[in-house]
Amino acid sequence: MRKKEIPIIAGVSNRHVHLSREDVEILFGKDYQLTPIKDLGQPGQFACKETVIIVGPKGAIENVRVLGPERKETQVEISLTDAFKLGIMPPVRDSGDLEGTPGIVIVGPKGSVIKEKGVIIAKRHIHMHTTDAEKFGVKDKDIVKVVVEKGDRRLIFDDVLIRVSEKFALEFHVDTDEANAAMLKTGDVVYIVEEL
Amino acid sequence: MRKKEIPIIAGVSNRHVHLSREDVEILFGKDYQLTPIKDLGQPGQFACKETVIIVGPKGAIENVRVLGPERKETQVEISLTDAFKLGIMPPVRDSGDLEGTPGIVIVGPKGSVIKEKGVIIAKRHIHMHTTDAEKFGVKDKDIVKVVVEKGDRRLIFDDVLIRVSEKFALEFHVDTDEANAAMLKTGDVVYIVEEL
Repeated sequence: MRKKEIPIIAGVSNRHVHLSREDVEILFGKDYQLTPIKDLGQPGQFACKETVIIVGPKGAIENVRVLGPERKETQVEISLTDAFKLGIMPPVRDSGDLEGTPGIVIVGPKGSVIKEKGVIIAKRHIHMHTTDAEKFGVKDKDIVKVVVEKGDRRLIFDDVLIRVSEKFALEFHVDTDEANAAMLKTGDVVYIVEEL
Repeated sequence: MRKKEIPIIAGVSNRHVHLSREDVEILFGKDYQLTPIKDLGQPGQFACKETVIIVGPKGAIENVRVLGPERKETQVEISLTDAFKLGIMPPVRDSGDLEGTPGIVIVGPKGSVIKEKGVIIAKRHIHMHTTDAEKFGVKDKDIVKVVVEKGDRRLIFDDVLIRVSEKFALEFHVDTDEANAAMLKTGDVVYIVEEL
């Protein structure tokens, strides 16, 4: 059933925030620099010491991790479980595609921002380097199926977006709802499968 | 890809508690009777007005719905998301299979109980009547695959347990993590698929 016997490592993304320079300064103070504490699976990406509170019409979620580096636009990535708690209904989107997404209030230690847009549920995807794409025989923005073969909740994710770049490392990204539905943990192995 | 063109209605189970007579009396008072407020998809099953608080070593969850009728043994069904919050790690189990499952504290308006076991993450399953089983060509305890064909997060659930009884109505049960991973809502339609 596997398309290629090439294992792909899974990375489970908990809710997190990418911040613009402007929002870093509002939330944490003028000229503030984010503090990296852990490298992530993708080269150059890191988790920061800093956390914020995100607030919607129905609730708030504390201790939401800030990821670096800073981005041009602030982006908040949550699970559908989180969305129910906050009382907003973001679309399933690829990172950076923020047009028409709902807003949110972000509260930091030095200030707060009211974002008019920027909240998404991240579309599950596989980051891969150009050389990986050649091995798999896929290209950027292809859609593939991914199988979780082990554990008590085996399943096949359809609608998995391929993202190819020379800056990417091979990694399958899902959010916590998706990981929990499949009993999948960061570091577990998944495979691309043939068309059904 | 569908095994049979017979639609199955999905029912999403939020966290809930089934209580024994003894625990009803401890939590809500002597001779207390649960108050049905809504019939569920399965004949004779109902949601109650009553809620409890469930508490683990790492956290508490309030407003957990009690489902009726009473059972011989108290059983708490939560999602893996809930399990992380409570700080316990229940297995994925069929309803009623409680041997070796973790315990929990249940708090009601009139008293509290410390359960030594009884917490599970429900194994996804399809309830069906004997006549449905004939139509699908399956039998009790078979494992099938179920496809969610619509929405932004299409996927195929493997490891779906078939439960057949003359008391059951045709319904596909998943928990909130599984529903959110597939963008599936109660009332949506799914299908059994052929072996891959």
